[in-house]
Amino acid sequence: MGRALATALTTAGHDTTVWNRTPGKATGLAVTVADTAAEASAASPLVLVCVRDQSAAEAILDADALRGRTLVNFTGNSPRQARALASWARDHDVTCLDGVIIATPDIIGTPAATLYYSGPHHAYQAHRPVLAALGENADHVGTDPGRAAALDTSLQDLLWTALSGVVHAFTLAAAEDIAPDEFAARAKNLIGILPDMIDQIAEQLDTGHFPGDDTTMDSVGAVMDHILDTVRFHDLDNGVLSAARADVRRAVDAGHGTAGYARLAAR
Amino acid sequence: MGRALATALTTAGHDTTVWNRTPGKATGLAVTVADTAAEASAASPLVLVCVRDQSAAEAILDADALRGRTLVNFTGNSPRQARALASWARDHDVTCLDGVIIATPDIIGTPAATLYYSGPHHAYQAHRPVLAALGENADHVGTDPGRAAALDTSLQDLLWTALSGVVHAFTLAAAEDIAPDEFAARAKNLIGILPDMIDQIAEQLDTGHFPGDDTTMDSVGAVMDHILDTVRFHDLDNGVLSAARADVRRAVDAGHGTAGYARLAAR
Repeated sequence: MGRALATALTTAGHDTTVWNRTPGKATGLAVTVADTAAEASAASPLVLVCVRDQSAAEAILDADALRGRTLVNFTGNSPRQARALASWARDHDVTCLDGVIIATPDIIGTPAATLYYSGPHHAYQAHRPVLAALGENADHVGTDPGRAAALDTSLQDLLWTALSGVVHAFTLAAAEDIAPDEFAARAKNLIGILPDMIDQIAEQLDTGHFPGDDTTMDSVGAVMDHILDTVRFHDLDNGVLSAARADVRRAVDAGHGTAGYARLAAR
Repeated sequence: MGRALATALTTAGHDTTVWNRTPGKATGLAVTVADTAAEASAASPLVLVCVRDQSAAEAILDADALRGRTLVNFTGNSPRQARALASWARDHDVTCLDGVIIATPDIIGTPAATLYYSGPHHAYQAHRPVLAALGENADHVGTDPGRAAALDTSLQDLLWTALSGVVHAFTLAAAEDIAPDEFAARAKNLIGILPDMIDQIAEQLDTGHFPGDDTTMDSVGAVMDHILDTVRFHDLDNGVLSAARADVRRAVDAGHGTAGYARLAAR
């Protein structure tokens, strides 16, 4: 990802200095290679960090080198870690933005990449022209430094749970002799209904009313039991679906059997 | 759903006889109301059944009344139940198709409804002009009577696992003070990547190669651990995501840490 970010910056004509813990990663890039992370940090008014995890980021952040500059941390982190880093930055006269990249390296700099930033709005506005090189589909999502990470964590929760359903469904389809390409075509048709369902869930959460007009919690439980019957018949793993079934059972036990499924998201 | 099916048939100009275990359900419909399920079955060459579950369907199917006719069973069932019904039908000189409706009652008869049929192809071809009234987005998916139910079960597996991720993500977003409508907009943007990912998974399953170029099983595990940290910090239920994490851990333990996530779907 670091290489993709550097490539996007140089392609847009920005002088770029890079550092990587493994020397040689910048081969072929039109960049200046620094010997240390501190040297790379001191080279520009805008410093992007994207390393393995938050502790790796903290290990290379040099307060002296960063003082007076704007740091954008693209390292994957939790909302709490992002807030802690922002607090450290304030203490050391560093302006800090937390950035989230929703893209694979190959689409950095294209409209397919989505980027979220949180932290001081003035800092985002000031560096927006340079940051735009990474992807123009970018948003400043709030001044709370943890907000980009909060949004990212929630979206990743949705994505990886959904993908666990996708791979499990391919497995179940295969057990019923349905070929991957046939199932893929049907699955893509099916997920076309998700946007409307997401809007409906948001609307029900906004109003606090969860009518079970289309599908009740009771009927969702029955559908899940049906699926589980066939999953067990084929002796496939049922951990994820059983956990989802347990959530429905708890909601029914709490008296929400005739409510809509979105009731699960109510606090 | 029965009312929606009857309405679609009469709207298309087909003489329709109905029966429901609860009298009065046909009020306002331009149909003939039968006194018994057998009487309704005997009234037409094409008989549609859509009741609560397979045992309710079996309780009202009358071999004498159905003999020589075509039965389309829209009752939710498993592939095994659909095959058992087809076997019963063969034994009683009844032509049987199994039907699956992927739609809420309000979109029956519109292009938004998807319908799948399995069983004898000649029977589907013969009755296609009438069945088209229920929705033209319809496919005969195979002569194996259980195939429509197998496809439906696999798709429902995907749908309800994905939706469990959607409601959980709304809950996590709310814990981080992200409003439902804001999260909905971001979530809809995110799921735009699912079709390409579904195609990629299908392709990897076809070839049996699972390169971890974009995302390895190891990195998916790390992402899930990140999400779980924040989920636990907010004291939210983590059953579904923990089960998905356990699947990844098993794959890593089996030596697939550098493989792509789709490896989970390989047999």
